[in-house]
Amino acid sequence: MTKDLASFVTFAQELASAARQETLTRWRGAGSARDKAGDGSFNPVTEADLGSERAMRSLIEARFPEHGIIGEELEDRPASGRWSWSLDPLDGTRAFVCGMPTWVTLIALLEDGAPVLGVIDAPRIDECYVGCEGHAAVHDRDGDHALKTSDCTRLSEARLSTTDPYLFAGTEADAFERVRRSVRTTRYGHDGYAYARLAAGSIDLVVESGLKPWDYLALVPVVRGAGGIVGNWSGGGDLAAGQIVAAATRELFEEAIGLLT
Amino acid sequence: MTKDLASFVTFAQELASAARQETLTRWRGAGSARDKAGDGSFNPVTEADLGSERAMRSLIEARFPEHGIIGEELEDRPASGRWSWSLDPLDGTRAFVCGMPTWVTLIALLEDGAPVLGVIDAPRIDECYVGCEGHAAVHDRDGDHALKTSDCTRLSEARLSTTDPYLFAGTEADAFERVRRSVRTTRYGHDGYAYARLAAGSIDLVVESGLKPWDYLALVPVVRGAGGIVGNWSGGGDLAAGQIVAAATRELFEEAIGLLT
Repeated sequence: MTKDLASFVTFAQELASAARQETLTRWRGAGSARDKAGDGSFNPVTEADLGSERAMRSLIEARFPEHGIIGEELEDRPASGRWSWSLDPLDGTRAFVCGMPTWVTLIALLEDGAPVLGVIDAPRIDECYVGCEGHAAVHDRDGDHALKTSDCTRLSEARLSTTDPYLFAGTEADAFERVRRSVRTTRYGHDGYAYARLAAGSIDLVVESGLKPWDYLALVPVVRGAGGIVGNWSGGGDLAAGQIVAAATRELFEEAIGLLT
Repeated sequence: MTKDLASFVTFAQELASAARQETLTRWRGAGSARDKAGDGSFNPVTEADLGSERAMRSLIEARFPEHGIIGEELEDRPASGRWSWSLDPLDGTRAFVCGMPTWVTLIALLEDGAPVLGVIDAPRIDECYVGCEGHAAVHDRDGDHALKTSDCTRLSEARLSTTDPYLFAGTEADAFERVRRSVRTTRYGHDGYAYARLAAGSIDLVVESGLKPWDYLALVPVVRGAGGIVGNWSGGGDLAAGQIVAAATRELFEEAIGLLT
């Protein structure tokens, strides 16, 4: 790993620790959740989201004032060089307010817009997944462990995850249904944590749509660093439309793309 | 609490600890999962399931040889008195083999067939929920905490959980869909842990079908002990058909029943 990136990995883990202080102390005290959408849909922003993003921004602004920042909750900060950070302070807010433990904080470092370092931190489960320069590892209570995706190459043997099957509409719903009917088993509701478990080899495929940059940028270095494939529903590498397929192997990715397009 | 039941609570927690030794040590080493159904459907039995049930049975047989035992994996043991145990050694086997942390062990003590003591133990999250004689509490890393369901009385404000929306077919699917469309948000995939969080006040409603006795018997004293309501889809108390509704309040239960029947 280059010297620059090694020090950024340490710094990104400091960001995750600072975010944990804000999220864990507010978990299961969901009385402060309020409705962000304001149109009757349920999109809660808790003080945990805001506190987590503010804590990470303060650290970045103090240490790297020239770096840009995009985050889910607060305004973009333009970069004055090639480095920027993407922050999702609390991915899985609905799980968070329902008292479920698999919510995560997502952190990505972008070099000229491309994610080169990703962190998926799961505070309540005490697992921090990091991907950088073709490698990925998880730090948990037992130490550091290298991550490797499973060797699953066939949909009929695959463990699929998606956050909510009802998030898909129209042709997307039909396409997802073709994949869902072809796999071995499907899990729901794990947001960014599903990609962490794909990197770790216990989920084989994740199919989602409607993702924002802060939802997917951090996942890319983790999944690719563990040997997995990340692309869009057409099989390409441009994720900007928010349709994401992540797979343990190239063969599995191609088989999923065949049903999605 | 009667003296008999107080000692049974302690013993049930010993059972949960013994089960943890068998499940936690085998988690995320899911290579030993094999297909129980044998018909292409995915119903994995791991060594964790079997080890967990055997460990609990040995303790019961040694301490209370006259007690009956029903369990998910092994043969029924008839009772020679009024006490029996119901054991689900690993509820959420699919979550377990997908590396997700909310799988649980379910333990119920039955008096003349009725559940009077229930344990929902979540080993990886280190939370043990116990309900008995109108009270419920969770033991976690911070100690013991009394459980109380939320005060949610309206579907439009409710957080719903069910294990898998695709488990429902025909008129059941239509009935569930009416409820799903009426609630604020829905979470999937948490098996018995959803009832624990209902008892703790962070889930308001659980609707499921196809449950076996070992799936639901342990949940009843926990949910009722926390002030919640458990019944069948027609609003009655007979759960033998496996259609279960658990709600934080009577009003919420009745509103859900109105859409399910």
